[in-house]
Amino acid sequence: MQYQLYYWTGIQGRGEFVRLALEDAGADYTDVAREAGDDAIAPFLDGARDGARPFAPPFLVAEGQVVAQAANILHFLGPRLDLVPEGEAARLQALQLQLTIADLVTEIHDSHHPIASAEYYEDQKDAARRRAADLRQHRLPKFLGYFEQVLARAGGQHILHRHSYVDLSLFQLVRGLDYAYPRAMQTLAPKIPHLRKLEARIAERPNIAAYLASERRLAFNTQGIFRHYPELDGGTDGSED
Amino acid sequence: MQYQLYYWTGIQGRGEFVRLALEDAGADYTDVAREAGDDAIAPFLDGARDGARPFAPPFLVAEGQVVAQAANILHFLGPRLDLVPEGEAARLQALQLQLTIADLVTEIHDSHHPIASAEYYEDQKDAARRRAADLRQHRLPKFLGYFEQVLARAGGQHILHRHSYVDLSLFQLVRGLDYAYPRAMQTLAPKIPHLRKLEARIAERPNIAAYLASERRLAFNTQGIFRHYPELDGGTDGSED
Repeated sequence: MQYQLYYWTGIQGRGEFVRLALEDAGADYTDVAREAGDDAIAPFLDGARDGARPFAPPFLVAEGQVVAQAANILHFLGPRLDLVPEGEAARLQALQLQLTIADLVTEIHDSHHPIASAEYYEDQKDAARRRAADLRQHRLPKFLGYFEQVLARAGGQHILHRHSYVDLSLFQLVRGLDYAYPRAMQTLAPKIPHLRKLEARIAERPNIAAYLASERRLAFNTQGIFRHYPELDGGTDGSED
Repeated sequence: MQYQLYYWTGIQGRGEFVRLALEDAGADYTDVAREAGDDAIAPFLDGARDGARPFAPPFLVAEGQVVAQAANILHFLGPRLDLVPEGEAARLQALQLQLTIADLVTEIHDSHHPIASAEYYEDQKDAARRRAADLRQHRLPKFLGYFEQVLARAGGQHILHRHSYVDLSLFQLVRGLDYAYPRAMQTLAPKIPHLRKLEARIAERPNIAAYLASERRLAFNTQGIFRHYPELDGGTDGSED
């Protein structure tokens, strides 16, 4: 099976959750825009290509289908890459967890862009400081506490009793938060021991370790979803917090 | 099959997307919290019940499973209620569209709560005015334009060539926006003729018409996701827009 992944160049973004699954499974895939440029994406968004029309990247082209929405792509890939347990109930549980991760990812994005995703961070910085404070104080403890509890209840090794795309996405979530909100994550560390160990185990999986050491793994940066602005992490930028 | 739906009383909320599917199909279901109170929800969120632990309502209990996340619930119900086309490709396309609706629903929620969902609207009103202006001017035209184009391309009657839970959710989306943003929707009307006709057709489906006329259909109100605040709709509350 050959997979074509379409996602904006220059950032990890939501495409990274799909990329980690493809890399972990050693799948044969092309990261199309990185080879052909971002212009390769537009014809799909414009409806000029066959198949389901995506609203936005990431989307995957495989088996003559276009599959969009990161959680939907992982739901499609799970059985094909042996990254989800057998059976409908387990697949629904995986999708539910992935959608909850997606909800948190949106909240993390909105912590630096609470007003308008198309406007500059600098033009919504005051609102961002308020939203990021709420994220740090309320939303991160609630979401990460939930994942920690589900992981602990499942035995601590895997959130679904065996390796899955959800474990890979939790790795990415924790890594992204470590980059964007290091102070907040330091404070939360005692509350999420199983998530921390899961993150470390995923990083040591041979295909993931090779990927992380490769040029294909872009660094986190302040163009992506996870952005490090010290003033949003409870640090100071000269004004009061 | 007997379904138990769990969702907060007093609002339509995200539970309404599930409720419309159950009602349209004439399914045998219990709206548990409306009979037993919101306290019936907590044991599931606390992990005191068997099955997958939900992060938040809505969730459905059926066939010994707990299924959470509205789009995931509809993905589960689709084949059981004959509300999705046959075949994996069509089911993935339905889920992709539903997840795109869910993304817009989150943006609509955040238009009145851009800073913190647990704080009062009045305490984030200035940020809400800015975010709502962006929603009206950029996000709604983009999302609704997308759904309109996909619907038109599919022939205009159904977004998936036949009746599905996605059509029901598009009805709810348009109705909710008509309530919350009547001025913005008036402006957008010429751009979304197929969506408007779809909304009218869904309202006339016998089971939906009966449901909308029943006491089970709560009115939209300013506690839910779709909230009508004239000042967010480009109206005036005494200050400049």
